[in-house]
Parts: sequence; structure tokens; C-alpha cells
Amino acid sequence: MASVDVGVGLLGYGTVGSAVSRMLAESGDEIERATGHRLTVVRALVRDPAKERGFAAGDDVLTDDFATLRDDPRVDVVAEVMGGVEPTGGYVRELLRAGKPVVSANKQLVAREGADLFAIASDAGVQLRFEASVCAAVPVVKVLRESLVAENVHRILGIVNGTTNFVLSRMEQGGTYDEALAEAQALGFAEADPTEDVSGADAAAKMAILATVAFGSRVLLENVECRGIETIEPAHVAAAAGFGMAVKLIGIATLAGDAVDVRVQPALVERAHPLAGVEGSANAVVLQGDAIREITLGGPGAGGLETASAVVADLVSVVGTSGTGFLQNDACWRELPKLDPAGWRAPFYVHLDVADRPGVLGQAATTFAEHQVSIAQLVQHLEPSRAALDLVLHDAMIGSVEAALDELAASPEVLGRPFVAPVITA
Amino acid sequence: MASVDVGVGLLGYGTVGSAVSRMLAESGDEIERATGHRLTVVRALVRDPAKERGFAAGDDVLTDDFATLRDDPRVDVVAEVMGGVEPTGGYVRELLRAGKPVVSANKQLVAREGADLFAIASDAGVQLRFEASVCAAVPVVKVLRESLVAENVHRILGIVNGTTNFVLSRMEQGGTYDEALAEAQALGFAEADPTEDVSGADAAAKMAILATVAFGSRVLLENVECRGIETIEPAHVAAAAGFGMAVKLIGIATLAGDAVDVRVQPALVERAHPLAGVEGSANAVVLQGDAIREITLGGPGAGGLETASAVVADLVSVVGTSGTGFLQNDACWRELPKLDPAGWRAPFYVHLDVADRPGVLGQAATTFAEHQVSIAQLVQHLEPSRAALDLVLHDAMIGSVEAALDELAASPEVLGRPFVAPVITA
Repeated sequence: MASVDVGVGLLGYGTVGSAVSRMLAESGDEIERATGHRLTVVRALVRDPAKERGFAAGDDVLTDDFATLRDDPRVDVVAEVMGGVEPTGGYVRELLRAGKPVVSANKQLVAREGADLFAIASDAGVQLRFEASVCAAVPVVKVLRESLVAENVHRILGIVNGTTNFVLSRMEQGGTYDEALAEAQALGFAEADPTEDVSGADAAAKMAILATVAFGSRVLLENVECRGIETIEPAHVAAAAGFGMAVKLIGIATLAGDAVDVRVQPALVERAHPLAGVEGSANAVVLQGDAIREITLGGPGAGGLETASAVVADLVSVVGTSGTGFLQNDACWRELPKLDPAGWRAPFYVHLDVADRPGVLGQAATTFAEHQVSIAQLVQHLEPSRAALDLVLHDAMIGSVEAALDELAASPEVLGRPFVAPVITA
Repeated sequence: MASVDVGVGLLGYGTVGSAVSRMLAESGDEIERATGHRLTVVRALVRDPAKERGFAAGDDVLTDDFATLRDDPRVDVVAEVMGGVEPTGGYVRELLRAGKPVVSANKQLVAREGADLFAIASDAGVQLRFEASVCAAVPVVKVLRESLVAENVHRILGIVNGTTNFVLSRMEQGGTYDEALAEAQALGFAEADPTEDVSGADAAAKMAILATVAFGSRVLLENVECRGIETIEPAHVAAAAGFGMAVKLIGIATLAGDAVDVRVQPALVERAHPLAGVEGSANAVVLQGDAIREITLGGPGAGGLETASAVVADLVSVVGTSGTGFLQNDACWRELPKLDPAGWRAPFYVHLDVADRPGVLGQAATTFAEHQVSIAQLVQHLEPSRAALDLVLHDAMIGSVEAALDELAASPEVLGRPFVAPVITA
């Protein structure tokens, strides 16, 4: 097979872009063996072509003019590693319409504008790949689309945000949420403004993408039920440990009958579950299906080199499968309704702060029973003038649990807002 | 894209073959969306066409005559799910020479005859895929070849045999090797003759395949250093637990400079390592590389449906990438020497039974020191008239450790053969 030169355009040439450029240069032989093609960065769009780069671009590669890249006939495929939704989305649309396949590392763009972008790619007959948009180097999109092509994947569980996992891992070793977050910021695992991560929004975008691929039905960001880790207290972490569990921010996508439910929230994970051992800033995703039972993929969910590795793999797949039509359509092919969020079922953990008076425990138990929710485990901690109740409930609808908690919260015996989180059993 | 019918031939129609046939029938729409093709089993080679099958084959599909399958012009691609090396290898060769791509679930065939088979496939210009030959549904071959195409993978750690992992998991809960093996046999996790599994031979074949793919250099079965789990005693498992570790049968493939080392042996795995939590009959593989740091893939390593899922994924990839040349060459492209086995380095665990006499501990410490091996941790258990020494050694060459142990074993103070196993740190 004769080698054919393939010109790569980069939107962005920062940490990830430099790493992509370096990998393409240093792994040229490996890529040529796999595809018969040699990939070379011929154009890269940057704000300031004069700025120093992690891996120097070739002469005349850097440009601050998008049209120069778009109209360069040597650009056969483009990697979008600039991030952001605008102007990035507009650039990607123009490139697709111009017949250039695009590989994107941008979860916000894919989650927010995927429907439109895939439609444009399909019309233009070019590929749009996005492995790097979810969990960096962990190849969950390729595995879902290719390895599990004939598999009915009906549930995805994921730790898909390294910042929150780092914070929760630190809280397990002691300390408050604020202390753990400050440490994550000091070590560079959390941004100065950590909202996007700690609120669950970053994880929600990734879970929306994974659910769309796995279930073949578009999941919009606004349809992901999302709760962050800001309300996690040391008492919850300690109670989880007492039950043999760890608190994690878990994304859960469920295909229940013909309805889809996607949610991100703190959950208590039993120690024997593969996600319980995911420590620090690592990511891991569990894919459950009929034939495969359960496959777990884990690894670094962020980082310049890690992300670049996935971008390069996508570029190679685009080049290698060009002209075949293989997996080049939108993964989304049907429209499934959203499950009524109140109808989602799981076992739950509940934490209640209550007045230390006779009858409070009985009141809680009665209220749950009235809502058809039964208690599997209960631990009471006495504190001066009040008590903390930690309960594990049997499998129940979240709507029933929340109705019971609303009722309890209205009682003068219950202090503050109850805390509820699903339990992930091993 | 118009759908094109693709005829599938099966070598074998037992548990896996029936499951492949069922999946192709039931997931026809999914596969057609991904590839534009509809795959149908048109021929299957079996010993007894009259026998009842898990999923009924169509009329005139089953045949006991290989030539009927080979010469059927409707057969576009073949899945080999009959196992064994002969006559299977001969059949696969004939099919490849006849221009039929082949997908194999057969680790012994791929590990033993891969070089010849890939050469024939290459000459014939057809694909030979083998995802199902290693870890069933866990897509480690695709991830290595496609997702990590530009990555320098330099180390693979794997729990790739479910039987031994089940036995060792049971021993952790108490009981001897014989008891745990008997339980595995009673539950169907171990064969009546478990030699292939407990000796490490099954794991060695899988590690040879993975190392060949990852390092691009053929690893022959006879070049895998292999030790089984038959000599594991409750004392070793208890000592490991005391050090915060679990005993696992671990395959380790290392690219050290330009030399390759592949070995399968019991190892002590630190609790925080991703492989320590792999329980029961599960499999997991850790891939370490420059950019990705470490990716872990886990799931069921055996089972009819699980294996069929990987076979179907390979069939889909063959059909989807047909005509591109993408990853259709042998993964093996260079010849790297085997590392001198004595030069392989790791921290080690050593168990010594010694006479309970003054000076024995000092003798052991001195002997290790003379071989440039230093001791990180030591625990001594006194038993009636003798003592057990459990040691964790700092990183050392296995050759030096074994030389020290040979010297100690020759001493009348040391009772029986010392036990040594590498330590896998988190």
C-alpha cells in the first residue's frame, strides 16, 4: 500500500494542539503502518501566531485567519482543540460544509450542538468524531460504537469528572468540602472558579454524549437531572464509610423500557463495585448490556497528552475508514421519551438531622412506610440536643422518597433539609 | 447507503456459534445502521447437523463438510468458533487463501500459528481479526490497535484467566487451594482437568497475543515465562493480606528498552491498584503508555454470549472497513529480542520456612545483601519448632533474588523451597 500524505488542520494549538502535532510527528511510522497514510499538520488556527508553543509548528502553519485554514486545499481533516461553543461551532459547521471531516475534543459543543453538527456532517458526507470529548484517553465512544455495535447497552454508570472525584477522595481521608476543594485548587485539579465541575455540569455534558451514543436517541443537556457535590458534608462521607460505601459523583444513564433517564448526582457506591476504587482525578465508566454483562473502562479523564491521544486515534480512524460509510452516520437514530424523573428507581441513602425527642425515629419510619418506601439499614448518632439518622432504603422510586422527605422536612422535629443520594450496589 | 447482504460462514455452531447467529439475527438493524450491510449466517460447519442448537440455524445452513462451506460463493466472511488447533488451523488457512476474511475466537490458534496465519491473510489481501481470543467481550485488541495506535504502550498487566482468579478470590476468604479449586469446579468455573488454567498456560497464550499486538513483535508461547497457582498456600494469601495486598495470577508484558519480557505468575497486588479489586471470574487488563499513563479495561473474560459479542464486533469491523487497508496488516512489524529473564526487575515478596534457631534471620538478611537485594518489610511468625518469614524486597532483578534463594534453600536452616512472587505496586 503506497503511503498517501494527509494534511491535518488544527483549530487551536495550545496544550492539546501542540501534543497532537507532536504525536503525529513522532508516531508517523505507526500511523502509516495502520492506515497507509502519513498525517502532517499543515495549518493551525491560533489567536497569536507569534506566541511560543509546546511543540513548534512548521513554517507557515500557524494562522490567525480561519478562512486561510478552511480554504487551504492541503487540509484533508481537521481536529478541533480550541474549546468553547462560539466561534468554534461556526468554524466546525463551515469545515463540515466544505467537505472536511472534523474530530472534536469539545464536550460542550458536541453535547449542545451535536444534532445540528451531525446533520451537517451527514449532508456533506464527511465524518465527525468526538472520542476526546468524553474522558480524554479512555476510549469509551469507540467501544460503545464499534465493540458493542450489536449489544443492547441499557445502563451506563460513570465517574466522568476528575475534579469532583479528587475532592470526594480527599474528603474520605477527612476534612470538609471547602478544605478538599482548596487543596484541589492548590494542586491544579480544580479551576479558580470550580462551578462547572462541582455543580455536575461538566459531568452532565459527558453523560449526555454517552447516553446519546449508547441509546441511539439524542439526550439534551437540559434533560440531564443534575446535582453537584457542594452539599456533601463530612457526616455523609462518614456514614457512607460506616455502610461500607464511598461517596462519588456518579453519572447514571438508564434505558428503562423505551424511556431514557440521565442524571448526575452524588451517590454512595458499595466498596466491591468497580467504581468505588476509582481514586483521585481518575475517570471510569461501566457499560452494562445483555450479552457483555458489564465492561469497565478506566483511566485519566483529562490532561493535554491524554486528550491528544484520543484526538490522534480519531484522526487515524477517520483516515482509515474514509470512503466506507462505516460508522460515519450520527449515532442517534431514534427519538425516545424522557423517563418521568420521579419514576427513576434505586436504593437510596438518606441523612436526616432530627431533634433528640422520643418518637422522631418512629415518625420517620412511618412516613417512609406511608410512601411505600422501606428501610434496609438505619444508624442513629446522638449529638448534643439532636440526633443524626443515616438510613439506607430499599429500591424505591425517587419520587416516593422525595415525597416522604418533603413531608418529614415540614415537621418541626426535622432540622434542615434531608440529604438523599442513590446507592450503587456491587 | 443501500444495504448489501453479507453472507457469514461459521466454523462451529456450539454455544458461541449459536450466540453469534442469534445476535446477527436480532441486531440486524443496528449492524445495518453502522455498516450499511446486513449480515446473515449462510453456512455453518458442525460435526452433527442433526443435533439441537441453542439458536436454530436456517434451512440448509448446517453442514459437516468443510468444502461445502469453503466453496459456497455466498460466504463473504467466516467466524471461527470451533476451537482447537487442528483441523481448525488448516480450515482457516484454506479460507484465507480462498479470499475469505476470518474472525477467530481461538487464543491457542492465534498464539501458536499467528505468524503463519497473518502472512497468509496478508498475501491473500484479506483480514484476520481475533478480538474474542483474549478476554471475551473486553475489547482490548481494538483499543490497543486503534485507540492507542500512536501510543507507546510499554507495559501490560492483566488478570486474563477467570478460573485462577476465582480460586484465589476464594482462598482470600479462607481455605486451601484444593478446597477453592473443588468449589470452582462444582460451580462450573473450572474444568474437571483444570491444568490449562491453573498452570498459567491459558493466561500465557492471551498475554503472548496482547504483547504481540502492543509491542509489534511476535511473542511465541514458549517465550512466556509461566508459573501457575498450584503452589499458593494459605500462608501466602494471609501474608499478602497482612501487607495490604491480594494474591492474583498476573500476566505482565514489558517492553524494556528494545527487549520484550512476557511472564505469567502469581503476584502480590497492592490494594489500591486497579487489579486488586478484580474479584471472582472477572478479567481486567491495564495498559500503560507514555501519553495515556494507564488505561484499565475490565469485564467478563469468558462465556458464550460475551465471546459472541466480540466475534460480532469483529465481523462488523471486517465488513465496515473492507477495501480500506485500515489495520488489516499483521500487528507485528518488527523483531525484538527477548529480555534475559533473569534481568527482569520488580519488587518481590518472599516466603521462607526456617528452623527456629538463633541467627537464621541474620543469615537470610546477609544472603540477600550479598546479592544486592535489600529488604523493605519483614514479618516473622513463630510456629512450633520453626518460623515463617514473610519479606517484601525492594525493586531487584529476579535473577539476583533467585540466586539468593538458591543459596538459602541449600542451607539446612531453610525448610523446603522458598516461595517468590513479584509485587505490583499501586
